[in-house]
Amino acid sequence: MAHTPPMMRPLVISIDAMGGDNAPNVIVEGVEYYLNNSPGKYQVKFFLHGDETELQPLLSEQKQAAAHAEIKHSSEHITIDTKLSHALRHGQQMSMWRAIESVKNGEADAGISAGNTGALMAMSRMILRMKGGMQRPALAAIWPNITGMSVILDAGANVTCTAAQLMKFAVLGDTYFRSLYQVEKPRIAILNNGTEGTKGNKTVQEAHKRLSESEIGLNYVGFVEGNCISSGDIDVVVTDGFTGNIAVKTAEGTARHIGILFRETLQSTLWSRFTAFLNYIRFRRLKEMMDPRKMNGGVFLGLNGIIIKSHGGTDSVGFANAVSIAVKLARSSMLEDMEKTLMVLHNEDDDTGFLG
Amino acid sequence: MAHTPPMMRPLVISIDAMGGDNAPNVIVEGVEYYLNNSPGKYQVKFFLHGDETELQPLLSEQKQAAAHAEIKHSSEHITIDTKLSHALRHGQQMSMWRAIESVKNGEADAGISAGNTGALMAMSRMILRMKGGMQRPALAAIWPNITGMSVILDAGANVTCTAAQLMKFAVLGDTYFRSLYQVEKPRIAILNNGTEGTKGNKTVQEAHKRLSESEIGLNYVGFVEGNCISSGDIDVVVTDGFTGNIAVKTAEGTARHIGILFRETLQSTLWSRFTAFLNYIRFRRLKEMMDPRKMNGGVFLGLNGIIIKSHGGTDSVGFANAVSIAVKLARSSMLEDMEKTLMVLHNEDDDTGFLG
Repeated sequence: MAHTPPMMRPLVISIDAMGGDNAPNVIVEGVEYYLNNSPGKYQVKFFLHGDETELQPLLSEQKQAAAHAEIKHSSEHITIDTKLSHALRHGQQMSMWRAIESVKNGEADAGISAGNTGALMAMSRMILRMKGGMQRPALAAIWPNITGMSVILDAGANVTCTAAQLMKFAVLGDTYFRSLYQVEKPRIAILNNGTEGTKGNKTVQEAHKRLSESEIGLNYVGFVEGNCISSGDIDVVVTDGFTGNIAVKTAEGTARHIGILFRETLQSTLWSRFTAFLNYIRFRRLKEMMDPRKMNGGVFLGLNGIIIKSHGGTDSVGFANAVSIAVKLARSSMLEDMEKTLMVLHNEDDDTGFLG
Repeated sequence: MAHTPPMMRPLVISIDAMGGDNAPNVIVEGVEYYLNNSPGKYQVKFFLHGDETELQPLLSEQKQAAAHAEIKHSSEHITIDTKLSHALRHGQQMSMWRAIESVKNGEADAGISAGNTGALMAMSRMILRMKGGMQRPALAAIWPNITGMSVILDAGANVTCTAAQLMKFAVLGDTYFRSLYQVEKPRIAILNNGTEGTKGNKTVQEAHKRLSESEIGLNYVGFVEGNCISSGDIDVVVTDGFTGNIAVKTAEGTARHIGILFRETLQSTLWSRFTAFLNYIRFRRLKEMMDPRKMNGGVFLGLNGIIIKSHGGTDSVGFANAVSIAVKLARSSMLEDMEKTLMVLHNEDDDTGFLG
């Protein structure tokens, strides 16, 4: 297929404009928000895959998006009734498929969808294929800590994992973190129910031993417990998808719970409402720091391409955050770096007779 | 051994007064705090197991504790250098052993220790033995939610679990919750990475099927995700000890993280400090609601006796909370109720050929 080579054109982000609870409105508004609020915005172009009769009127209302986005018409999209098997066999006309295909074809540098997570993972895997030695992608999520951000993976794609998979997650997480935050040697830890070497199940113990002994150059610092994920001492938290999903959601639920208590406290009397008003700017800053939209944008790692999963229920600000992750990663050398380290890991596996 | 039968004497709580980071001071002060702040205090008596030369001066400073506690001298206790194998073979003179033994002998109705968790579990199991069909106790922790409290088990004692174990945890958690909060039909759920029946690993799926079909009379409501533990819709959260430990600690860590951000926000300017001062009472109430000391006191379930594990680093208020849990459970029919339901479950297991 003839297309402009990546080096000759602006950065292109390919978006499934029909995926998510509030698509396509929030998607188009999210692109507009990104363009209005991000530096270097004029070097990015967007493909909006979806129904042009729906998208055209929305796009014409958004000045920046209209100037930087191109609608790529697709006649179908995934709905709540779509079966995964159907989408994988007959989904070629679907907006999600097309969004991924643009990445596969090299027409785009990264793809985003707020649609069904399972479908996005399976479709990405089928279209883009996995990097050498990997079976399924890992979903990396962003985790706010005291001093900045950490990442945690797998956040739900691989429910049961071997030690060899955890090793690969460490490599993927390391490269991802470096690409996103320009940190040279991210501190990597395995999530466990204690920090002593004897703690945990066989899988984490085996992965711990292997990571401690490996010479692939990761900055592995040992086990981390749930209460220290937010400490700011760890950059990359490695875990299986079952535990990772529960940890991420437990943190979300706890933050929401405290937020509710906090609001109730401030609104419980006229006096407290008045003093809260006096403190408005400070509280707004706190609210901003805890804003879950700033954490929106999970990345499927291990694919031959960059695919971002936005929360299905996010708003335009949250979607814009997913866009900014896509842009950062598309500008980085993440995929090439991953390839290299996975290759070194693969050689080490052969040496140690380690089986995935 | 001759001792007063339980019905003829006041309720007795047996305490390992030497266990914990700040023992024995915090232990004695915790008993005093409990006696000064709890209704029905005069019907409770305490055994303080430990070094009498250390305990006597501390006790004589506390008016209520001195009147209600009896020192039971023991010459040894577990230190940071004590090996578990040594404690289990030669620990008969240790304060933790003696505290458990008082429960075993029927001299006391419940035991508490803030000492080493692994040692307390192993020693309790050895001295008190497990209820029929159980291999190891489950550690149940208290989890604050929007409307009150939930419990979660296992919080760390059983790192890998079978579906049959999760079934037993459901029974134990049900009886525990009923005993602690006088709720007739606690809502029980299995912690999972999604609520659809297809989600999760084989173990949770098998336990889910079994609990859905069981006729032992539990109010099983299905899967719960990490972000809904705090929703107030679930009373008993069932999970393996690895995941449970990580969920409990992740929630603790997130709450602490937000607490730090909140304090920084309020103290960032003189003005915000002033308005926070105006709001002092409201914030104090919020702080109280989130006070981790109110959640102090894990319970080892499945033993032939009531054993409470206090956090090692808690203060006297936290220890008093563990005491109040011990008193509530000792006054309840928890052990007999558990025995009955486990028996019914055991019969159902036989019928279904279900293997633990």
